[in-house]
Amino acid sequence: MYKCSLERMSDKIKTFAQYGDAGHGGITRYSLSAEANMARAEFKKRMEAIGAKVECDDVACMYATLEGSDPNAKRIVMGSHCDSVKNGGNYDGILGVMTGMEVLETVAAENIPHKHPLTAMIWTNEEGSLYPPAMMVSGIICNDYLPEELRGNFLYDNLMKSTPMDESPYATFGDALAASPYTGPKENRLSPENACAMFEAHLEQGPILEDAGNAIGAVQLVMGMFNYSITFRGFSAHAGTFPMAKRHDALYAASSFLVELHKRYDEYNKEVVAAGMPEFVYTTGEINVHPCIHTVIPDEAVVSLDVRHPEPEVRAKCMDILKELAAKDWCQCSCEIEEQWVRDTVYFDKQLVGFVEESMEEMGAKWQKILSGAGHDAQFCAYMIPTTMLFARTKDGLSHCEPEHVSDEDCTEVATATLNAVLKADAAL
Amino acid sequence: MYKCSLERMSDKIKTFAQYGDAGHGGITRYSLSAEANMARAEFKKRMEAIGAKVECDDVACMYATLEGSDPNAKRIVMGSHCDSVKNGGNYDGILGVMTGMEVLETVAAENIPHKHPLTAMIWTNEEGSLYPPAMMVSGIICNDYLPEELRGNFLYDNLMKSTPMDESPYATFGDALAASPYTGPKENRLSPENACAMFEAHLEQGPILEDAGNAIGAVQLVMGMFNYSITFRGFSAHAGTFPMAKRHDALYAASSFLVELHKRYDEYNKEVVAAGMPEFVYTTGEINVHPCIHTVIPDEAVVSLDVRHPEPEVRAKCMDILKELAAKDWCQCSCEIEEQWVRDTVYFDKQLVGFVEESMEEMGAKWQKILSGAGHDAQFCAYMIPTTMLFARTKDGLSHCEPEHVSDEDCTEVATATLNAVLKADAAL
Repeated sequence: MYKCSLERMSDKIKTFAQYGDAGHGGITRYSLSAEANMARAEFKKRMEAIGAKVECDDVACMYATLEGSDPNAKRIVMGSHCDSVKNGGNYDGILGVMTGMEVLETVAAENIPHKHPLTAMIWTNEEGSLYPPAMMVSGIICNDYLPEELRGNFLYDNLMKSTPMDESPYATFGDALAASPYTGPKENRLSPENACAMFEAHLEQGPILEDAGNAIGAVQLVMGMFNYSITFRGFSAHAGTFPMAKRHDALYAASSFLVELHKRYDEYNKEVVAAGMPEFVYTTGEINVHPCIHTVIPDEAVVSLDVRHPEPEVRAKCMDILKELAAKDWCQCSCEIEEQWVRDTVYFDKQLVGFVEESMEEMGAKWQKILSGAGHDAQFCAYMIPTTMLFARTKDGLSHCEPEHVSDEDCTEVATATLNAVLKADAAL
Repeated sequence: MYKCSLERMSDKIKTFAQYGDAGHGGITRYSLSAEANMARAEFKKRMEAIGAKVECDDVACMYATLEGSDPNAKRIVMGSHCDSVKNGGNYDGILGVMTGMEVLETVAAENIPHKHPLTAMIWTNEEGSLYPPAMMVSGIICNDYLPEELRGNFLYDNLMKSTPMDESPYATFGDALAASPYTGPKENRLSPENACAMFEAHLEQGPILEDAGNAIGAVQLVMGMFNYSITFRGFSAHAGTFPMAKRHDALYAASSFLVELHKRYDEYNKEVVAAGMPEFVYTTGEINVHPCIHTVIPDEAVVSLDVRHPEPEVRAKCMDILKELAAKDWCQCSCEIEEQWVRDTVYFDKQLVGFVEESMEEMGAKWQKILSGAGHDAQFCAYMIPTTMLFARTKDGLSHCEPEHVSDEDCTEVATATLNAVLKADAAL
């Protein structure tokens, strides 16, 4: 059992929190921005200081590698992203980068023998805040291995030309990349030829560990999901002149639908839990109403629906309920549903998950098995090489906001679990 | 009984529909725009052709006057506006202007004797599409007579500096006015000193006349109303990572509230109708959700509520229901209500309403008494001088959209009713 250093981890947390510091506790650190470059420079400086070789690929991913004793062994990689959402926190993404750094620093400081090259990695543009979509670069790098239906979203040539959000100083993602000091040859990309495992540490982004009194979690899978838009169409008329019975109010239709959907889904969730499965989570986060004027009856309301659960049959039943409700009359409005995004459950590599669980157990950590409801680069990487994830306890379950917090101790704990799992992989692979 | 000319009215309808023609049946004719100036030039040309004297005031209202036989008599005015909403129709506003013109043309053509000067009028900027608020200029002109709580909204100096919407070529409403060829001295404004009555003809903007098989209506009042914003606050969390029971979803709260509000209001409306009163109309037209992202649970939802009825006690009971519901727990979210706009019922002048009703009856028209749910310049004017309105049947109740339609016959019918009511006023006042 090796242990990572609380002191060193605390120093990294404090240091990286400066790069993009928004002045009120959190950061805004868009991918390929000046702020992200400061974080990258810090990564390079610290990794070179322990003798790691730092390389970049053509999409600005960074790899800091400590050579192993076997010149033919493939890399074991620990990585996550250093970009954030707007007004995000000091942990989402960077925790996994700091974990990779801390593992390498511990290996170097304690001279821990290892066969495989060990690589701390920065994935470019996971959030997609300035350059959509999210998980863009893991999609590009793992593209050949992604399921058919996802591949089209991550075609390199298209994404290079994609127009960024307003705040970008560059006209396209390709332009931002061309201006980056952190690019290198395409051959440097992570691949099955140069790597045999990828570990991603991340904050949980939910309250499950905290509520259970556990510090860290061994992630089993990323839940499958579907995301639909639901459109209600009626017709507009003047708020003051149109009798109530003749109205076809699209917002009233959408509201009635949402209340019924919640009722039906909550009922079904009880059955799911009674059958011994975890509950499914569903979210109606977006609504857009037209014309959205207080004196006009809305003629259109579009609502989003996001449903997540590991089991295909649970998602299928949720879809059945959606279709059943969509076929009904809602306040004299039509209802149409349209698929936006569907993904299957991604199961992490059984052997790697086992190494993580054994490490957590041997450490005497307060830990548990856990599922990921959110998407991560690891989920695309899992299609390409054996991959798994570790979660750290998140204060109040908050993330993607400035109060996002993980204690220094829990950050160190997840690094220690990663270190020992990596050493188990080093011995076994 | 005098009659207006269908042929002349049809020609005006066709002519004015060119000014701002959007190419698909309707018009976009913002106040003080080049398109509105074309309509104003047409008004001036036709009115001068029958010997009317055309004057403008400092806020670009236009007055075309045929002198009467009594040099000491005050004007009897017929007016409405020539500006439209974006992609509006060929009747809202301009019908009342064409009615005034048609009345003067009929008086001139048939040499109808009259004591009072008769004035066809264009009110500036009723829609407020480019320069909010709506009914801006009637608010300015009638300001001294408006109820205390409304006056502040229509202070001349503030409105001159108010910033327009994006599409305006001018920086302020004052700049647009300064550039207008249709301004004159402030003394030319409509006032109790120079006018003794104002008639406004307008399309109904609802389906009540059409459903009853009536062509025209004698408007009794403009309904009182209240407009509130209702804000639900919960907190945001990630769609994939947050257990259902811990969510405080502001959109779900708003939806649940809206469904309950509709239920309670619909029940109460039955009581209102059973008591022999017209139903109240209520509209929840606007919703704004934050952050409005499909993968994030909303932390805030703001909904608008607009309630209209002539009787103060009905509006008060609607307010009680709103307050009662706002005090409840909605999906673990807080609920706050805030007044945006309140107006009392404006009753039109009994004598003028009587002249309109007598005229409609004597014409053998298919007519009825009717209430206005929408606001009009006449409603502000009513605080200053005796005022009333006439409505014309509206196809399918549609207005503020390109399919907005009133038949040429119904337009002529409402002009004839106005002519005869004006002549009754001319004799009596």
